[in-house]
Amino acid sequence: MAKNETDKEQLKTLEEFGASLVKQIESGQQPSIELSVRSLSNVVFDEKTRKLGIGEKTSERAFFNVAHAKKFLQTIEVAAISKSLIEIDKTSSLRDVFYMAKRTIPGTKTNVVDDQNESDKAMEDLEIITGFTREQLHVNANKMGSVAGNVIIEDQGDTIDWSKLGSGGWSIPSNVEKIKFKKMNAKYVIYMEKAAVWERLHEDRFWSKQNCIIMSSQGQSTRGVRRLLQRLATEHKLPIYVLTDNDPWGIYIYSVLKHGSISLAHMSEEMAIPNVRFLGVTCDDVTKYKLERHYIKLTDQDTARLKQMAEYDWFKDHKEWQKQFKMMKTAGAKVEIQSLSARGITFISDVYLPEKIKHNEFID
Amino acid sequence: MAKNETDKEQLKTLEEFGASLVKQIESGQQPSIELSVRSLSNVVFDEKTRKLGIGEKTSERAFFNVAHAKKFLQTIEVAAISKSLIEIDKTSSLRDVFYMAKRTIPGTKTNVVDDQNESDKAMEDLEIITGFTREQLHVNANKMGSVAGNVIIEDQGDTIDWSKLGSGGWSIPSNVEKIKFKKMNAKYVIYMEKAAVWERLHEDRFWSKQNCIIMSSQGQSTRGVRRLLQRLATEHKLPIYVLTDNDPWGIYIYSVLKHGSISLAHMSEEMAIPNVRFLGVTCDDVTKYKLERHYIKLTDQDTARLKQMAEYDWFKDHKEWQKQFKMMKTAGAKVEIQSLSARGITFISDVYLPEKIKHNEFID
Repeated sequence: MAKNETDKEQLKTLEEFGASLVKQIESGQQPSIELSVRSLSNVVFDEKTRKLGIGEKTSERAFFNVAHAKKFLQTIEVAAISKSLIEIDKTSSLRDVFYMAKRTIPGTKTNVVDDQNESDKAMEDLEIITGFTREQLHVNANKMGSVAGNVIIEDQGDTIDWSKLGSGGWSIPSNVEKIKFKKMNAKYVIYMEKAAVWERLHEDRFWSKQNCIIMSSQGQSTRGVRRLLQRLATEHKLPIYVLTDNDPWGIYIYSVLKHGSISLAHMSEEMAIPNVRFLGVTCDDVTKYKLERHYIKLTDQDTARLKQMAEYDWFKDHKEWQKQFKMMKTAGAKVEIQSLSARGITFISDVYLPEKIKHNEFID
Repeated sequence: MAKNETDKEQLKTLEEFGASLVKQIESGQQPSIELSVRSLSNVVFDEKTRKLGIGEKTSERAFFNVAHAKKFLQTIEVAAISKSLIEIDKTSSLRDVFYMAKRTIPGTKTNVVDDQNESDKAMEDLEIITGFTREQLHVNANKMGSVAGNVIIEDQGDTIDWSKLGSGGWSIPSNVEKIKFKKMNAKYVIYMEKAAVWERLHEDRFWSKQNCIIMSSQGQSTRGVRRLLQRLATEHKLPIYVLTDNDPWGIYIYSVLKHGSISLAHMSEEMAIPNVRFLGVTCDDVTKYKLERHYIKLTDQDTARLKQMAEYDWFKDHKEWQKQFKMMKTAGAKVEIQSLSARGITFISDVYLPEKIKHNEFID
């Protein structure tokens, strides 16, 4: 039924899931689902893949259990919504799914869901049950971010040249599963935290001079951006360099891209990108490029975050990161990437980035 | 000196501004600048143009006045930065301008600026002095938003077809001053508050079926988006329809687009768009489309904002808006646009919007 060939597998999985429940019912069993536990206690860091993941604890959700019945229904409801979206080849947002699921159960005064938190959780369950991301199940996160570079893609029947989109670039959709890469002439990707830095590099035609791809969202990366980076890293073996402020939040943006996040640990396989590298701004850069006069004092929140991060499994035995955390703590200060502008408006494009990339000055 | 012909006027104005100061100095006068007062007391609502604007109060900023000297210097500094940006045909963000201006005054231990607030204010002064927006002076705000539609533009030597950009659309730059419209086949523009709603309409090819342009940012419109809408409204006489949640903040997004904002009152001429219309979601829609079951209780903050808005000059004698404010207050509740999804995923594209537009159901 799915219009799109690539969705056949999702549809098959959802149908099998439904069929297994029907089978349980027909054989007189109580319908139940086995699910991996998604609490922090079951989030594990895999030393080998360097990705966060879900451990082996599972729980059973049974229909004839007062504590489970509603959640059970909610899971089936979002599965049905996802199936119908795939069948008509439409996608929707989590918010839309919430409103679609928010209907009264016939013969009662109870809604299937009353709060978006419930349908969101049910959607996460469905990700675990089916092994597909919610984007693959036609449910999208928010859209944000721009990209430019020597790349030609095909999307929804359009051929789009990322090098010929004026000052704006291509607006990254929330769902990048169906994009096809037609021509790939870039050697690496620079992903930056700030849209303003992206505009700086784009105006300087950095991607053209350096033959790379520049990409940004704003703050923490959206899921569309993460999946696009992951596809570039795995399908085209491009190194991904991350460019953020020199502060704990910038480092955490890198950390989420590389290792996955605690809240989406069950999706690390599709989302985490092990060959992500932190390009800057590092604490060493602050000294090298004389940015000390632009120091901004760490807030209590910054200091707490720094301490917390230093203790994460993936950072605690990492010499270089421990050195960075220590330097930042000793300085008691952070530095914004835009402070490089004090050295000249195109300093970042002409000197800072080419030097760092030429000398392989990144933290892996 | 400006590489770009269209920047000649800005450069000339900045040079004349500098020359007038030099002349004052050479004739033994104290250098001074006359400036419109930008405080709330000097923000006026022009009944005729329906735009917010700056009143007639002016003040003098004199160099030999301890209270003025630093601000005077800061204004000259940002003027010099803007001039050099225009000369090398580069643009930069407000944050970059801050770092470029943050240098020690020779022979002292004092910085020209210590806080971005100072360089931002100086930039606003320069807008008033020169009559150009800061984008025209090559200083950009943040970049956000997407657009799609039957339009072809030229930007930075690239020809960009807004109807052929896949699922992402064109990413709207922070500065749209130099975009040229090459082909315009759209009859109107729908501007929406939420990127997720944009993706809904885009996936449904709403702009193609209805021959219009769809545009969004996220929350309050960025300056790039506002200027792009203004250019479409004035240069191509396109009606602009605004689509937001049914809440005080949605109505305020419409208000800022139509009448200008208090903080940017001095830029209303370039930014406000008198032919903006509020398409929805209205309080009448809530009844008509049976959205009451998706009511969300107004917070104290919502109620306060509603009261404040009802008293604004441009709303206080507006019958239809007063009716809306009253309906919302009586209901004590707001409704999200995405609640329309409860009626079906493409209900907004297939029924709600076509009906509203066909029957001219907007608030002017």
